[in-house]
Amino acid sequence: MRMYDILHKKREGGELSTEEISWLVRAVTEGSVPDYQISALLMAIYFKGMTPDETVDLTWEMARSGDMADLSPIPGAKVDKHSTGGVGDKTSLIVGPIAAACGVKIAKMSGRGLGHTGGTVDKLESIPGLCMDIPRERFYEIVNRTGIAIVGQSGSLCPADKKLYALRDVTATVDSLPLIAASIMSKKLAAGADAILLDVKLGSGAFMKTLPEAVELAKLMVDTGNKAGRRTAALITDMDMPLGRCIGNALEVREAVEILHGTGDKRLTELCLELSAGMIVLAGLAETREDALSKAREAIRTGRAFKVLCDMVSAQGGDSSCLEDTGKLPLSPCGLTVTAAESGYIAALDAEACGLAAMELGAGRESKEDEIDYGAGIELLANKGSKVEQGQPIARLYAGSEGRCERAKERFLSALSIEKEEPEARPLIIERIGI
Amino acid sequence: MRMYDILHKKREGGELSTEEISWLVRAVTEGSVPDYQISALLMAIYFKGMTPDETVDLTWEMARSGDMADLSPIPGAKVDKHSTGGVGDKTSLIVGPIAAACGVKIAKMSGRGLGHTGGTVDKLESIPGLCMDIPRERFYEIVNRTGIAIVGQSGSLCPADKKLYALRDVTATVDSLPLIAASIMSKKLAAGADAILLDVKLGSGAFMKTLPEAVELAKLMVDTGNKAGRRTAALITDMDMPLGRCIGNALEVREAVEILHGTGDKRLTELCLELSAGMIVLAGLAETREDALSKAREAIRTGRAFKVLCDMVSAQGGDSSCLEDTGKLPLSPCGLTVTAAESGYIAALDAEACGLAAMELGAGRESKEDEIDYGAGIELLANKGSKVEQGQPIARLYAGSEGRCERAKERFLSALSIEKEEPEARPLIIERIGI
Repeated sequence: MRMYDILHKKREGGELSTEEISWLVRAVTEGSVPDYQISALLMAIYFKGMTPDETVDLTWEMARSGDMADLSPIPGAKVDKHSTGGVGDKTSLIVGPIAAACGVKIAKMSGRGLGHTGGTVDKLESIPGLCMDIPRERFYEIVNRTGIAIVGQSGSLCPADKKLYALRDVTATVDSLPLIAASIMSKKLAAGADAILLDVKLGSGAFMKTLPEAVELAKLMVDTGNKAGRRTAALITDMDMPLGRCIGNALEVREAVEILHGTGDKRLTELCLELSAGMIVLAGLAETREDALSKAREAIRTGRAFKVLCDMVSAQGGDSSCLEDTGKLPLSPCGLTVTAAESGYIAALDAEACGLAAMELGAGRESKEDEIDYGAGIELLANKGSKVEQGQPIARLYAGSEGRCERAKERFLSALSIEKEEPEARPLIIERIGI
Repeated sequence: MRMYDILHKKREGGELSTEEISWLVRAVTEGSVPDYQISALLMAIYFKGMTPDETVDLTWEMARSGDMADLSPIPGAKVDKHSTGGVGDKTSLIVGPIAAACGVKIAKMSGRGLGHTGGTVDKLESIPGLCMDIPRERFYEIVNRTGIAIVGQSGSLCPADKKLYALRDVTATVDSLPLIAASIMSKKLAAGADAILLDVKLGSGAFMKTLPEAVELAKLMVDTGNKAGRRTAALITDMDMPLGRCIGNALEVREAVEILHGTGDKRLTELCLELSAGMIVLAGLAETREDALSKAREAIRTGRAFKVLCDMVSAQGGDSSCLEDTGKLPLSPCGLTVTAAESGYIAALDAEACGLAAMELGAGRESKEDEIDYGAGIELLANKGSKVEQGQPIARLYAGSEGRCERAKERFLSALSIEKEEPEARPLIIERIGI
């Protein structure tokens, strides 16, 4: 097989065969085709797309390009959850414990944050002592005992995806739906769960800005997962405003605890219950969504979900007393309160701009090498739709220096607009696919 | 400026500014952007095209990326001719001397052959002693004295084009009209002539297979040349059958001499007269095409054109007695005659397949490093449209070994089809653009 022929075929809009995709992914992994041919192919795929069969083939081959997790030592239904990335999205910290408390097995690999979106690994690492790099046998043991363990993504997971993503990132070929779907789903397949629930974010803070493309991506991923033999479903959820009240690692852990205590932000609680219910249904542990929703609510009400989180944190070496008393979690020393310049309703609080403000505070990374300040971030005292009076505090910013707070305030204010009219509320759950 | 932004803009179908193209070509020349970004851009250009302004900008910037020939020491109108490549296309050896005999100044840089098409440099080098690498002052002096000199393309001509072409060649982005136009025209601009005549080949042996794309390419190049301040025109000519009776380097020199003696193949003679007339008109040395055609015919009839070729060959160190007696030109030792398997008309003699057969004989290169056998090639005793009897010789193949002759015979026969019906004759000059 020759890379040139594959390139030419795709350029002409042809469908690559299973053999061609297998050859291609192997060549990419081994480094036996030059980057300039790979990037030309990525651009041809950007323009000509891929058929569902090609997408499934690419996904499978990328999954198999590195280690495939074997979760067979864990009895029961293993369900994974994936969010396409949002601002203030701490749902994994909440949904995992709830679903585990209802009998779902969560053996999860998570990533770090980059740019304006956070990563579950960074959030968990803000808990003193917690270790994300756990030997395989111990990982199995923790999941079997507590129902859940969350570890960092292994470096040998999907090397072909790593290579392709790095090239897409610098050649303006990231936003190709089949390439996005294959990249996400290959890592999910390699992570080994039996079923996968996808949370496709839609809105200013998300990668998908329009409903049709969010639906297309969600359907493509659901089809790909199902064709690969994993029960897969998706929710399309709003990301036009930050999710919940906190953005920043330790702050988000604190908020997760609040939700698990049943006292947190309503909108975030609703999303977490929906996602937990979805996982419970996919695990076959409830007949209907309503049934699953009651189980999830019950797991919060009884405190079982919170206990699961504490058990997991202890098992992974973390100081769970920080969850009993969240005042022990890190908090950056400099604080700055942002107040409303005028009275009215918050008409917009752009999620992406809030994410960038949090990054400015030190809560996120601009490049992979940046260090994170776990105690930095934004505590929102109001959100889109809130009625505010002039001078009323809207947010509290935390950072390691006053300069960072001042710079972040500028960004935050650029995200904010206050109007006389109450803005129309957008539904949180926009569409359900396959569930 | 960032390569990513240029890539993204072109991917979205935007028009690159003069500054962006200038930055891009400089970065390509300096090697300061990685190949994988360049090849992704080439694929985006393949799909999104370039506007006429972008094409002119790219052409100029590529021309200026290396040495620009200064032909000012040569008084008079300097006219260049370029063929998009054909099989048996020895017109430069004929048209140059005819036009020079009529007063046009020909200070030409030519290329080597690759694949199934030949190159003027290789053809001329089959003349013993002839040197294609001549110091600049001597080049001027030869043109001023004899009216013509043909040298090999300087290695420092259009380095940006060399780099881009090498990437296009391996990323399936060669056949993009603006990229083809810019590649050809940048070299013509850098070569320094005041006017340019393009011979765009159309047919099975040519790069352009359909009339609309040949016309589009021709118009694009004519516009680009004119916008760059060079008087430019184009002919679209047939390349569905080999041009003339000979394919192979020394064989083609021999045929060129025949044409200059007025005794050669009629179709090739017609094309050479048309091209010469075009150059004479572009040089401003005739009012009308008819006028120019008479001058060209006269240059042949009087023997002046042949004398110009002899003078040029001598001036460049070649043995011009080989032109007086073409039996002294190299001829490969093994010969094989191909005869007609049946009686009828030659319905097709695929030019590309003939070119590949000639390459098999040793007359062309498969890769840049291959050595050429100057005496190898094909002498056609019949061509498309000829009536042949069973057993009648159709072609004579020459090579260094019988094995090569046998392999080439296979290829040659695959190019040939004999039918009962006389095929429809295609016109030689299909369209004239700007002349």
